[in-house]
Amino acid sequence: MAGTSRTRVQHFAVSLDGFGTGVGLSREAPFGHAGHKLHEWMFATRWGRQMFGQEGGTRGIDDALVRQFSHGIGAEIMGAGKFGPPGWHEDPDWTGWWGANPPFHTPVFVLTHHPRPPLEMEGGTTFHFLDAAPAEALAAARDAAGGMDVRIGGGPSMVRDFVAAGLVDHMHIVVVPVLLGRGVRLWDGMESLEDRYDIEMVASLSGVMHVMLARTGG
Amino acid sequence: MAGTSRTRVQHFAVSLDGFGTGVGLSREAPFGHAGHKLHEWMFATRWGRQMFGQEGGTRGIDDALVRQFSHGIGAEIMGAGKFGPPGWHEDPDWTGWWGANPPFHTPVFVLTHHPRPPLEMEGGTTFHFLDAAPAEALAAARDAAGGMDVRIGGGPSMVRDFVAAGLVDHMHIVVVPVLLGRGVRLWDGMESLEDRYDIEMVASLSGVMHVMLARTGG
Repeated sequence: MAGTSRTRVQHFAVSLDGFGTGVGLSREAPFGHAGHKLHEWMFATRWGRQMFGQEGGTRGIDDALVRQFSHGIGAEIMGAGKFGPPGWHEDPDWTGWWGANPPFHTPVFVLTHHPRPPLEMEGGTTFHFLDAAPAEALAAARDAAGGMDVRIGGGPSMVRDFVAAGLVDHMHIVVVPVLLGRGVRLWDGMESLEDRYDIEMVASLSGVMHVMLARTGG
Repeated sequence: MAGTSRTRVQHFAVSLDGFGTGVGLSREAPFGHAGHKLHEWMFATRWGRQMFGQEGGTRGIDDALVRQFSHGIGAEIMGAGKFGPPGWHEDPDWTGWWGANPPFHTPVFVLTHHPRPPLEMEGGTTFHFLDAAPAEALAAARDAAGGMDVRIGGGPSMVRDFVAAGLVDHMHIVVVPVLLGRGVRLWDGMESLEDRYDIEMVASLSGVMHVMLARTGG
């Protein structure tokens, strides 16, 4: 089944100027000065509201596309900066941003220079902590995914690392019409990516632009 | 009439990673390593083909939007880097990239630290060379525009300067699905621009994304 397992970035939001996160990240501000600007569109969808136990929400293009988040995914790999605020590795009680029942429901491999024992949460999410290069982390995630796809979870610098290593099959990037001015850029180091990926863009009435990058022939 | 004269950036193309021009600009490569990548979509339009005396071309959204280039425009301001390759000011015979009959057909104010006498071309284009700050250049262009709009012609760094000075009313930016990786960025220094501009995005079937930024209440 390994041959059919794909690696996918799902609805990764960036500003019009290309930043995937702001500056000044902290426990109170997971995206720094970006605040909620990059994700308001997602919290307006039915799927986004359900994540927080809320009713209502839109059922259009945005909602349909964010639902790809879990379809066919057997594991995620995320960067250390996604799992917690700067310095989380010094807090033995830190279990991520997502409460007792995180929205992943699969094994999640957290890339960190400070590994710790696996952390089993409610709902099927188990965090594994790995000090590993992208290819090695992907091998571990593929093993755990049982033939299903592996989500490349972000943040921006780990996505760049995996793209640079040629390990990403599909990216769904959401360009939000805000300008952050500062932060961590997603697109750096991807010169001529259009030679290796088919790129499609579609605007949603919500105001965001969905960019799909699919590895050519993949 | 001055109160109704607006300043407009028209179909300024950037890569998905935000570069308005590449690196290695020269007489043979006006956009450096970007080659024609940023403008192929435009040369596919009927308007773009007519510019080069060619037949055919598309008549869709891209064509309709590029035709805004000249409607209601009475003058243009451009940066030195748009008028010629690096060092053009040392060549007294340099008259721009556009041949005897440039596509502007209005006064054009070229910002340069090396002014020279005005250059009258065929078809109504006269190049004026100014060593001036953005506000001063805009005053001169407004005088010449006779109550019509002033085009902010680029390149990317002069657009940024005019935006930073609060002098731009409307921007039509075209995001092209290529990644240049290197060059001059358009969006730098525009943090929180969404607080001052209404931003709309629409995808064209040609594959590019049109981004309209209109000064709020303007």
